[in-house]
Amino acid sequence: MTNIKQDHHYTENVQDHLKQVESLLDKHALLETITHRQELPRDDRHELLDTLVHKQHVAELRGLLDDMHPADVAYILEALPIEQRLYVWNMVKAEIDGEVLIEVSDAVRDSLIEVMSQVELREATSHLDTDEIADLAPDLPQQVIRDVFKSLPIDEREQLRAAMSYSEDSVGALMDFSMVHVREDVTLEVVSRYLRRLDELPDHTDQVFVVDRNEKFVGVLPINLIVVNEPDVIVGSLMLTDIIQLHPEDKADQAAQAFERYDLVSAPVVDEEGKLFGRVTVNVVLDFIREESDTELLNQAGLREEEDIFASVWKSAKNRWMWLALNLFTAFFASRVIGHFEGTIEKFVALATLMPIVAGIAGNSANQTTAIIVRSLATGQITQDNARRMLLKELAIGGFNGIVWGGVAGLFAYYLYNSVPLGLVMTSAMLLNLMVGATVGLAIPFYMQKLGRDPAIGSSVLITAITDSGGFFIFLGLATIFLI
Amino acid sequence: MTNIKQDHHYTENVQDHLKQVESLLDKHALLETITHRQELPRDDRHELLDTLVHKQHVAELRGLLDDMHPADVAYILEALPIEQRLYVWNMVKAEIDGEVLIEVSDAVRDSLIEVMSQVELREATSHLDTDEIADLAPDLPQQVIRDVFKSLPIDEREQLRAAMSYSEDSVGALMDFSMVHVREDVTLEVVSRYLRRLDELPDHTDQVFVVDRNEKFVGVLPINLIVVNEPDVIVGSLMLTDIIQLHPEDKADQAAQAFERYDLVSAPVVDEEGKLFGRVTVNVVLDFIREESDTELLNQAGLREEEDIFASVWKSAKNRWMWLALNLFTAFFASRVIGHFEGTIEKFVALATLMPIVAGIAGNSANQTTAIIVRSLATGQITQDNARRMLLKELAIGGFNGIVWGGVAGLFAYYLYNSVPLGLVMTSAMLLNLMVGATVGLAIPFYMQKLGRDPAIGSSVLITAITDSGGFFIFLGLATIFLI
Repeated sequence: MTNIKQDHHYTENVQDHLKQVESLLDKHALLETITHRQELPRDDRHELLDTLVHKQHVAELRGLLDDMHPADVAYILEALPIEQRLYVWNMVKAEIDGEVLIEVSDAVRDSLIEVMSQVELREATSHLDTDEIADLAPDLPQQVIRDVFKSLPIDEREQLRAAMSYSEDSVGALMDFSMVHVREDVTLEVVSRYLRRLDELPDHTDQVFVVDRNEKFVGVLPINLIVVNEPDVIVGSLMLTDIIQLHPEDKADQAAQAFERYDLVSAPVVDEEGKLFGRVTVNVVLDFIREESDTELLNQAGLREEEDIFASVWKSAKNRWMWLALNLFTAFFASRVIGHFEGTIEKFVALATLMPIVAGIAGNSANQTTAIIVRSLATGQITQDNARRMLLKELAIGGFNGIVWGGVAGLFAYYLYNSVPLGLVMTSAMLLNLMVGATVGLAIPFYMQKLGRDPAIGSSVLITAITDSGGFFIFLGLATIFLI
Repeated sequence: MTNIKQDHHYTENVQDHLKQVESLLDKHALLETITHRQELPRDDRHELLDTLVHKQHVAELRGLLDDMHPADVAYILEALPIEQRLYVWNMVKAEIDGEVLIEVSDAVRDSLIEVMSQVELREATSHLDTDEIADLAPDLPQQVIRDVFKSLPIDEREQLRAAMSYSEDSVGALMDFSMVHVREDVTLEVVSRYLRRLDELPDHTDQVFVVDRNEKFVGVLPINLIVVNEPDVIVGSLMLTDIIQLHPEDKADQAAQAFERYDLVSAPVVDEEGKLFGRVTVNVVLDFIREESDTELLNQAGLREEEDIFASVWKSAKNRWMWLALNLFTAFFASRVIGHFEGTIEKFVALATLMPIVAGIAGNSANQTTAIIVRSLATGQITQDNARRMLLKELAIGGFNGIVWGGVAGLFAYYLYNSVPLGLVMTSAMLLNLMVGATVGLAIPFYMQKLGRDPAIGSSVLITAITDSGGFFIFLGLATIFLI
């Protein structure tokens, strides 16, 4: 995706474009409706007029799309319902099809690829770099990938094979191959002449990589240093050697943290023999971080994957089922815990009205603990050394909240049912369940991390299951002992 | 913060450094304990040895810290408990104090600034750029800011005043003033000579800005184009004019989306008269996006702000109170809804065991709807046009889930209590409450956005309050009508 800057227009506010497209589509739809309704008795002049207006709208829409940056086209496609989306997608010029497919969300990409022929798909990928083809590959039909692969020069075939072999959360998946490299024993003059021959540098070339005779990576030469130094300086005397080197198998997350910490624009990727293999650029890292954070938010609500907001009811329902089924299961379990105390509730029906309070507040509090822990776990700032200290702190907060909010809830219970023992049972149950919450809120993400799982995913179902069932059990249990 | 690349070491794995620091501190603590325990009868040789070992540890620690990048020092400080953190903070060399303060999280920054004298704070800020001073300013004592302000040259005073005047979520807050600008009627040769006089370019200078005689912004000249073109080319013939221009009052969020969409490294900030005012760079955008996403996750769990994981119990509890109080209040309300049906529950105690299921599942489902909507609202992809369509879709999913999972829950109820009417009431209540959930899960974030509030914050308390109270009301109400 070289040189987008010169080819496409930027827009200050892409939402305005979205509104324009929507209004053109609306006019268009209106026209179609009129045309259809008047199908029988129509005079020719009217028809001609319709067709003219229609053509004008189509031309206007096409003109709007032609001027747009592929990322903006992607934005608009995502915001349109399926029929309109496919209508607009047909109007997008073929040269940017590939770039648009790269930019749209996974869910929307599926809907676009579905309606493209193999020929169109091959044509679309022909404008892409190998690392971009690798990104699309999982969504393309086998036959298309095979054809694309055959059409590539040998070195790019190798790159594509390599790029496709790394898992989605590794540096290999973020990497591209558009890096410029030079030798350390030449002058800046020579480097400049070499660069001039390239006509233009790949996007995000803030530095060229320096390699030795065996293509081993030895350092980087920031473009800025080329610009501010005299032409007769030797590369080796200017280059920086104390530089982050990434490896294709590294976790993408680690690389993203390095970009954040050291404010990088690009970083070299080096293979196990120390040879320069590719590079990672900040724009890809930015997308990765955004995607990670979106995924985290979606997973917390129990969505398996990103959803096309206009996906079919069936597709969306499937995306949300697992979580609801899991929650239903834990709710059944909690219900059985309550069922165990039916005799107690029959004698003292106030318990039924108060028990959701005990369960709910501890669940909220536990999820607060988890939210604090998860980010620190992700950055690796929680060690064996400080984990114990944090547990003590969370228990102290739980105890403190138990006394304060448990006290308030106890007064509420006393006030409503005029029973001191009930108030005391309420307060004690809140206190105990908040301590349970603090413990599981910390322990569950901690052990999920130890087991190599993402602590942000699924922690909350488990935690809520425990604070719900635990809360019912503690409250009704205490009530059975002290009130009956 | 110029030229960090040359000054500091990068580390492949900062966690190793953290472990090293922790182990040095542990040895140190061990030593102190031994020294104290043996305070009375000690022979001098032993003391000498202790002191030597101690000195060696301190020297080792200091050496480790001196070599580290400020961002890595910040990382380690965040991961250390307060006493150890302050001990290490004292060892950090004064020149990087300011940069470390910029890098640490807000919560940890407070703990560091608290122990610094006004002289130290002034010294720390003296190594920072004006935009960085502006970032620190809210946490600094008034007197320090006044002193710093007086010590600046006039143009930087203006910059500081400007940078401090913009709200935290505006482009003005992301902006820096280290931009290089040139005239359009000069040759690349002249530009190169000018750049060489600067010795080094500010970080993230991927382009120089082109201004006219009145300092009006007219375009950008990518550094890459300087490198690949011949020296006699005129700037005006190469520069790009169709470029994103930011304004200091723009939403920071909008700017971040532009960086993501167009893969920018830097972008010009232009004032209302069209004059070049500053620039935004991708590293700041990266930090902004990370912070936004962290904040969103914390807010969803009801934490007012980021927490220092080693903050005092009191401080942490305060951070979490509002949310718990709010939830307690809504739980009290739900409890009163149940209380209204105490007569019904007394006659049919099974209702008490089943009611949490009705409330819980609808709450989960509604929060799924919200998770999908919030991101689309943030990017502006939800318009009046498609909002109605989405409501219909969410209602359809709710209905579908109501029949499937409500059916399962109905069978569960029937199986346990052998009552067909109870099973039917259960299924109907689930179905109705899931429809309520779909409606509020979509409507609440939508209207919060309309009212100019962040839909990601506080939506879930409201939604859960409605699905809880609503669920109890629907289920117990139906039961009162059909079962009693």
